[in-house]
Amino acid sequence: MTHICLADLERAARDALPGEIWDFLAGGSGTEASLAANRGAFERIFVVPRVLRDLTGSTTEVKVLGGRAALPMAVAPVAYQRLFHPEGELAVARAARDAGVPYTICSLSSIPLEEIAAVGGRPWFQLYWLRDEKRCLDLVRRAEDAGCEAIVFTVDVPWMGRRLRDMRNSFALPDHVTAANFDAGATVHRRVHGASAVADHTAREFAAATWKSVDSVRAHTDLPVVLKGILAVEDARRAVGAGADGIVVSNHGGRQLDGAVPGIEVLGEIAAAVDGGCEVLLDGGVREGGDVLKAAALGASAVLVGRPVMWGLAAAGRQGVRQVFDLLAAELRNAMGLAGCTSVRAARLLSTRTYRYG
Amino acid sequence: MTHICLADLERAARDALPGEIWDFLAGGSGTEASLAANRGAFERIFVVPRVLRDLTGSTTEVKVLGGRAALPMAVAPVAYQRLFHPEGELAVARAARDAGVPYTICSLSSIPLEEIAAVGGRPWFQLYWLRDEKRCLDLVRRAEDAGCEAIVFTVDVPWMGRRLRDMRNSFALPDHVTAANFDAGATVHRRVHGASAVADHTAREFAAATWKSVDSVRAHTDLPVVLKGILAVEDARRAVGAGADGIVVSNHGGRQLDGAVPGIEVLGEIAAAVDGGCEVLLDGGVREGGDVLKAAALGASAVLVGRPVMWGLAAAGRQGVRQVFDLLAAELRNAMGLAGCTSVRAARLLSTRTYRYG
Amino acid sequence: MTHICLADLERAARDALPGEIWDFLAGGSGTEASLAANRGAFERIFVVPRVLRDLTGSTTEVKVLGGRAALPMAVAPVAYQRLFHPEGELAVARAARDAGVPYTICSLSSIPLEEIAAVGGRPWFQLYWLRDEKRCLDLVRRAEDAGCEAIVFTVDVPWMGRRLRDMRNSFALPDHVTAANFDAGATVHRRVHGASAVADHTAREFAAATWKSVDSVRAHTDLPVVLKGILAVEDARRAVGAGADGIVVSNHGGRQLDGAVPGIEVLGEIAAAVDGGCEVLLDGGVREGGDVLKAAALGASAVLVGRPVMWGLAAAGRQGVRQVFDLLAAELRNAMGLAGCTSVRAARLLSTRTYRYG
Amino acid sequence: MTHICLADLERAARDALPGEIWDFLAGGSGTEASLAANRGAFERIFVVPRVLRDLTGSTTEVKVLGGRAALPMAVAPVAYQRLFHPEGELAVARAARDAGVPYTICSLSSIPLEEIAAVGGRPWFQLYWLRDEKRCLDLVRRAEDAGCEAIVFTVDVPWMGRRLRDMRNSFALPDHVTAANFDAGATVHRRVHGASAVADHTAREFAAATWKSVDSVRAHTDLPVVLKGILAVEDARRAVGAGADGIVVSNHGGRQLDGAVPGIEVLGEIAAAVDGGCEVLLDGGVREGGDVLKAAALGASAVLVGRPVMWGLAAAGRQGVRQVFDLLAAELRNAMGLAGCTSVRAARLLSTRTYRYG
Repeated sequence: MTHICLADLERAARDALPGEIWDFLAGGSGTEASLAANRGAFERIFVVPRVLRDLTGSTTEVKVLGGRAALPMAVAPVAYQRLFHPEGELAVARAARDAGVPYTICSLSSIPLEEIAAVGGRPWFQLYWLRDEKRCLDLVRRAEDAGCEAIVFTVDVPWMGRRLRDMRNSFALPDHVTAANFDAGATVHRRVHGASAVADHTAREFAAATWKSVDSVRAHTDLPVVLKGILAVEDARRAVGAGADGIVVSNHGGRQLDGAVPGIEVLGEIAAAVDGGCEVLLDGGVREGGDVLKAAALGASAVLVGRPVMWGLAAAGRQGVRQVFDLLAAELRNAMGLAGCTSVRAARLLSTRTYRYG
Repeated sequence: MTHICLADLERAARDALPGEIWDFLAGGSGTEASLAANRGAFERIFVVPRVLRDLTGSTTEVKVLGGRAALPMAVAPVAYQRLFHPEGELAVARAARDAGVPYTICSLSSIPLEEIAAVGGRPWFQLYWLRDEKRCLDLVRRAEDAGCEAIVFTVDVPWMGRRLRDMRNSFALPDHVTAANFDAGATVHRRVHGASAVADHTAREFAAATWKSVDSVRAHTDLPVVLKGILAVEDARRAVGAGADGIVVSNHGGRQLDGAVPGIEVLGEIAAAVDGGCEVLLDGGVREGGDVLKAAALGASAVLVGRPVMWGLAAAGRQGVRQVFDLLAAELRNAMGLAGCTSVRAARLLSTRTYRYG
Repeated sequence: MTHICLADLERAARDALPGEIWDFLAGGSGTEASLAANRGAFERIFVVPRVLRDLTGSTTEVKVLGGRAALPMAVAPVAYQRLFHPEGELAVARAARDAGVPYTICSLSSIPLEEIAAVGGRPWFQLYWLRDEKRCLDLVRRAEDAGCEAIVFTVDVPWMGRRLRDMRNSFALPDHVTAANFDAGATVHRRVHGASAVADHTAREFAAATWKSVDSVRAHTDLPVVLKGILAVEDARRAVGAGADGIVVSNHGGRQLDGAVPGIEVLGEIAAAVDGGCEVLLDGGVREGGDVLKAAALGASAVLVGRPVMWGLAAAGRQGVRQVFDLLAAELRNAMGLAGCTSVRAARLLSTRTYRYG
Repeated sequence: MTHICLADLERAARDALPGEIWDFLAGGSGTEASLAANRGAFERIFVVPRVLRDLTGSTTEVKVLGGRAALPMAVAPVAYQRLFHPEGELAVARAARDAGVPYTICSLSSIPLEEIAAVGGRPWFQLYWLRDEKRCLDLVRRAEDAGCEAIVFTVDVPWMGRRLRDMRNSFALPDHVTAANFDAGATVHRRVHGASAVADHTAREFAAATWKSVDSVRAHTDLPVVLKGILAVEDARRAVGAGADGIVVSNHGGRQLDGAVPGIEVLGEIAAAVDGGCEVLLDGGVREGGDVLKAAALGASAVLVGRPVMWGLAAAGRQGVRQVFDLLAAELRNAMGLAGCTSVRAARLLSTRTYRYG
């Protein structure tokens, strides 16, 4: 079947994956209010397109975190990608490289970060703060040594949110999938009734990061540091003050605080407050090229895309991921042109309206 | 069966047409968010009627683009009307003429424009900007020579939007339906898996119009020029500055930028900004006479009606189209009188409110 | 079965009545948007109750149009009540009299107005403006002579709205039901395919009232004159200026202009604008005692109740109507007490909020 | 089955209870508009979490009404808890004591208040105003003597609201369940068609409290007095002026005035108006720890939890209640940490947003 939108790949992925793995990917925390809101928020945004502009030289290319990307997006950090396909992170990283899109290696990757970084392209490294600070900073050093171009420091996970689907499934990783950058041992594989082994593992390993952690990371690396998981204007301002090179406005895909405001709802005011002091990225709810246009209009210089990329991976491996980028690229080019924008930067000047219907 | 509202004709048309042709008519682009919003926007508008006014001499007649129309409406440009009935554009143009309603000949008509214009009444000609500017301006000249009274220049189609239904149907025109004003050859008839032959054709023929194109058209004809597809106040103001005789506030029936704001949502502010500098028409979502009243209250001097006219055509040919106008006329007369308005101009003074229920 | 809310009686009435008679009662005009909105508007209003007030001497009694009513309500004018029960208007008028509630005799009553007025209680007379002004004013004189205490002049019916259910049913009155105050002849009984015989009849008999008609009526009678069908603040102010004793804020139960704003939405601003210059009543959507409290909080001195009274009539004749008043009285006493109000006037000081959920 | 959220216990309780007892617990008054709104209001509140704060020393403990509570919550007063489990109030009080949560003994407890108070922990006593003021004040004295630490004076029940489920069920208490603090005799057990025996009983026993009643209670006891059932800012201010130690912002779980605004909607403005003049608690709609965080952000120092505690009781007695507290505690700790709050007081500084989706 030809896939003509990402929802087609979502269906294919759901068909391809065991239920509990689908749930691990698709689920949110608690009542999944924030998960649903991430989509609901995009759906009530409407754009006021401009017409009759000269579209010559239109491009989706952007500069983000000091380098070029063919699209204003990067692959969001997603844990344990071998759950979705045997080639896991490598398949995604290769497709991302080929598409000119940065790939964010997750701390909890199921393939060692060095192997993924060796794929080339523009790897970024995502960092969780660990109880063992030394090991944490070692990961940063490893990432830098491996050629990663940025550190995406996740700041909204003092511990994993209560993901009820995983708890209901007593979810644990299959034996062949491990936290390859850690020595996690058997704990991520041991099923505990009514609990998530992944959450248990992180509860043992992770620590709550603070602004001091940010200083530590920055002192430890020369790479650009991006703080992922900012929703409050005050925190965005403080990130700038702390020297962050960028922030990702995100509620962690509805997987951390259930009831947290969707990033897209606060993006505009955060972008205005930051006012160019650092790059502002958006994460959560992007499901088509038109969503990227909306995010750009509200002030994002790029977006992170997580679940849709994994749909492609689960549906058809590296080729499936490439299809995801191809669709997003086609949709974005289409949306930009129909809105009269020759560049992502130009999209920032579009006016948006918020309505609820139906 | 007696048809007492346009929805009755919609059902009849859906029954009469093959699925893929229905989809070509009914569908929008992308997730069809703008398509649905066009209706949702009308449904949340409520009117504050006036009472006890003298209704003597009430009329639905208006002056639009330099001529009279029996109703404040015109037939919207719709491509390839022989898809819906063997008599195609001729049946519609005759019914429109008989009803005193201007008919907009589409560049992509399935009958040569001259034949349609020969029907009489008040033909207008819709123009797409073409890669071959000479051919484009030739069309304008042909239209003028054939007696068309206005050029409706579509400004929101640098290319066709991503209409997923057509892509899913691998839609192509049947052999007997062609772009009669072009020499399109076989390409509109060749099915390509996962693609729309109509979109492919336009991608080859159309070019993105600019404000310079508007100047070219105006320089090339003495007919009034209307820019169709304006949604931004700034573009409306610029249209006035560029000497446009009118604009059509429209998101192209939800068929171009998915997520574009419905025209009716921005009509009021555009009418206020234009402030009589040119005529302001509204297109998209009109499904009954009461909608025309709402559009008038928000500042439109007339509306374009597309899909409902095609429902009449598909259901019962020329007679079906006449029924559409008869229903709209009866509904509009009813709505105007119940709101205390003796003319469409008077309706502009009605107050409206926006509520969401249910 | 015990009926513990009006919805119970609605179900009983729907079971008791032939489909086309139910439709005549329940239906609205056009898409029934205003009909639905009348309920939707009440449902999104929430009240801020007061507590710990002395409830001694609480009463639902009010003074309305110069007389006392046991409840802040009157029976709305409803045509042809013998459609719903053999005793028709007499059953309702008797139950209203017994409950201390004014009954509005409809011009289109199916029993002569004098017979209904002879029931006693507090009859009011509803007036449509007729093509034959003399006959119209004769009706006023007859009503006054028969002891009616007020003229409720319907100002929102230059003609009947397009009630699609009746048109679809080719509705006509059964032979035993006639416009008893007119000599309507056979026309209300003749079925015409796709049309409503009732609408046809009124189209022949009714004329569009104007402010001059109001002067004529006022000059012709000493009774208080109430204008029913006001929704615009400007019309409310003009009603005061024209010497009206009261107005009924109403969209005619969603049966005239489809898309007309619900009365309850504009009640507050109209009450504020009128500022005691005349009485302000509310009509449309009242389905329980709590709705009466909401209307009072927004400035109504009383409400008209139409369909629910007819539910009682259809379900169980005079006893059924009495049940309707008993339920409304019990619900209203309950709501007033729980909101801390000892009188309907006191309810005016309650604060309301508007929210949409679910 | 493992219960991982309160909805699991709700299902278990519904399965465990006879339909009419479930209805008595779950139902609201009238159309249950306020009941539904209590949840709808929470669902449209979103929180803006803070990140990177030092979470060391986080605690859910609060000081409330002069004592400590392990969680910012107390068990709401609920009548006749032996309806839900043979051990009734004792099971709940014991679980509350063990969890460090105050338990509010209801005037209408099915076990004598002294026996419940003897369980220990932090018992509070809920008071209805009675026709026999002496008996009422005797109850206060008994409660004080039994060791209760506060009087929760219910001010929104001049009589019981119209709970249609109970009326439809002709609900009466089974013989083994009685109003143990009263000598209610047979009346709460006698089924009356279409009526609630519980409502009939209270109609005979209860009187409408006034501000004078508040003075009487305060004069009669040295315990802190909390007024439960405040929704208007003016009443909240007056409560402070009357010397109340606290108020509970509440619409009585949607069981009194149907159409009363949800407490959570007015909490913020009431907390601002009270401005520390007394403690402000919130009641109604709390179904998970995240709701407690929302209430805290809007100004509540604690919440009352009623139905969920009864779900635990019905599902598994004292152990079930303990599960409820354990879940609420885990959810609240999680939500506080993910929002960057080390204390309930700190949560007050969180920003909230209101959106409706889907």
